[in-house]
Amino acid sequence: MHIPSEEGYIDQVSIHCVIFGYHNKQLMVLIPKLNYKGDFWALPSGFVYQDEDTDEAARRILQDRTGLKNIYLESFKTMGKSSRNSKDFIRQLTELNPNSLDDQTKRREDEWFTRRFIGIGYYALVDINRVVAQKHEIDQSIKWYPIKAVPQMIMDHNLLVDEALESICADLDRKQLAFHLLPETFTMSEVKELYETILEKSFAANNFPKKILELNALERLEKKFTGAANKAPYLYRFPKQSNPS
Amino acid sequence: MHIPSEEGYIDQVSIHCVIFGYHNKQLMVLIPKLNYKGDFWALPSGFVYQDEDTDEAARRILQDRTGLKNIYLESFKTMGKSSRNSKDFIRQLTELNPNSLDDQTKRREDEWFTRRFIGIGYYALVDINRVVAQKHEIDQSIKWYPIKAVPQMIMDHNLLVDEALESICADLDRKQLAFHLLPETFTMSEVKELYETILEKSFAANNFPKKILELNALERLEKKFTGAANKAPYLYRFPKQSNPS
Repeated sequence: MHIPSEEGYIDQVSIHCVIFGYHNKQLMVLIPKLNYKGDFWALPSGFVYQDEDTDEAARRILQDRTGLKNIYLESFKTMGKSSRNSKDFIRQLTELNPNSLDDQTKRREDEWFTRRFIGIGYYALVDINRVVAQKHEIDQSIKWYPIKAVPQMIMDHNLLVDEALESICADLDRKQLAFHLLPETFTMSEVKELYETILEKSFAANNFPKKILELNALERLEKKFTGAANKAPYLYRFPKQSNPS
Repeated sequence: MHIPSEEGYIDQVSIHCVIFGYHNKQLMVLIPKLNYKGDFWALPSGFVYQDEDTDEAARRILQDRTGLKNIYLESFKTMGKSSRNSKDFIRQLTELNPNSLDDQTKRREDEWFTRRFIGIGYYALVDINRVVAQKHEIDQSIKWYPIKAVPQMIMDHNLLVDEALESICADLDRKQLAFHLLPETFTMSEVKELYETILEKSFAANNFPKKILELNALERLEKKFTGAANKAPYLYRFPKQSNPS
């Protein structure tokens, strides 16, 4: 089991990343499965170095799992229940994997890793085609799951996914979030499809482009070549592909 | 100087409360001034006990300053810069108040209080008439300031006020926030005035009631007695005056 070096980290504070992508009219979440007997899934998570901003810590964890440096992210919720610890998870894990932890490791875990943690939740929005998902040494696999089929994860990680989605829906226009999920160029009907997927409602085709263009977020490019010139849709580009750290 | 007992608290995590009230068509913020030479203002703040939820810690700090038990609050932002500490503040304070700290206190401060702190920002929305503002032992005064005239506070506390207001504006309808700022009963034109104050824009008198009633947040009561029966406006009540902890 990978035990964090507790030196240099802030005690009792963790970072959890909900990484969203978009594929085949589905919103997807990137989730690793731990390489142990038993089915343990957990959000890409980590800790904060003393000399590191929490945003930087989230970026480091995200880069580690996606290979991407410039990712749009937002902290959306801080989980602060006093009962929030990983004792149940560690107990289940060691019951199923009795020889996975040596005594010294176990003692360190008991002292550091199983204390109460305040969890800072970040969501990240990526172009799924740019991601090369990275397995950690502790992972059996790392996969994209449709948001409707996210596996049961440890601790409150499923709740974090729900809260992240709620936050994205609420801020979709104001923070111009959706476009981060699309490739470099896209058509208006692709934007409409994405909006309908995220918000789970339909938009009228005649009003939708106006609504989107009023966000002043997109550049219009040349028409997409389809062979039938007069029906070709315009291509659009979203210039700001990440937020500054 | 009041030094927190570091025993029992989570290290390097602080809570900061932006308490909003509404008076005379102005949004107000409750801010204490420290009882030291020099002008030091700071948001009502504190720390989190090991066996206490962060929401409970915020409630404790809020009750301490307002006398109110059931307050609507939301955590809106967690400040995570690695440079976020109170060293500058403590230095200025001790320069202006050279004898305020004894050596032992000073050493404890250097060790605990002046480390980097991750700050969890909460906003609270109160009926200003119900608040009996409570001075702390370290306060010279505690007062309501119009949001446009908030004094320069220590650390990033002014930024927290800005972010709290932004968050409230964004979630005003979705979270039915405004009504927490009103007294037990109110008229629709009082709601309109409040909305116009918070969002800094005008609403058309003929559309506004429909918009508000569609939130399904309010109970309509009897007409307000004004002497002129046919012109009397309805009174409304917002049943949910606090959120559960």
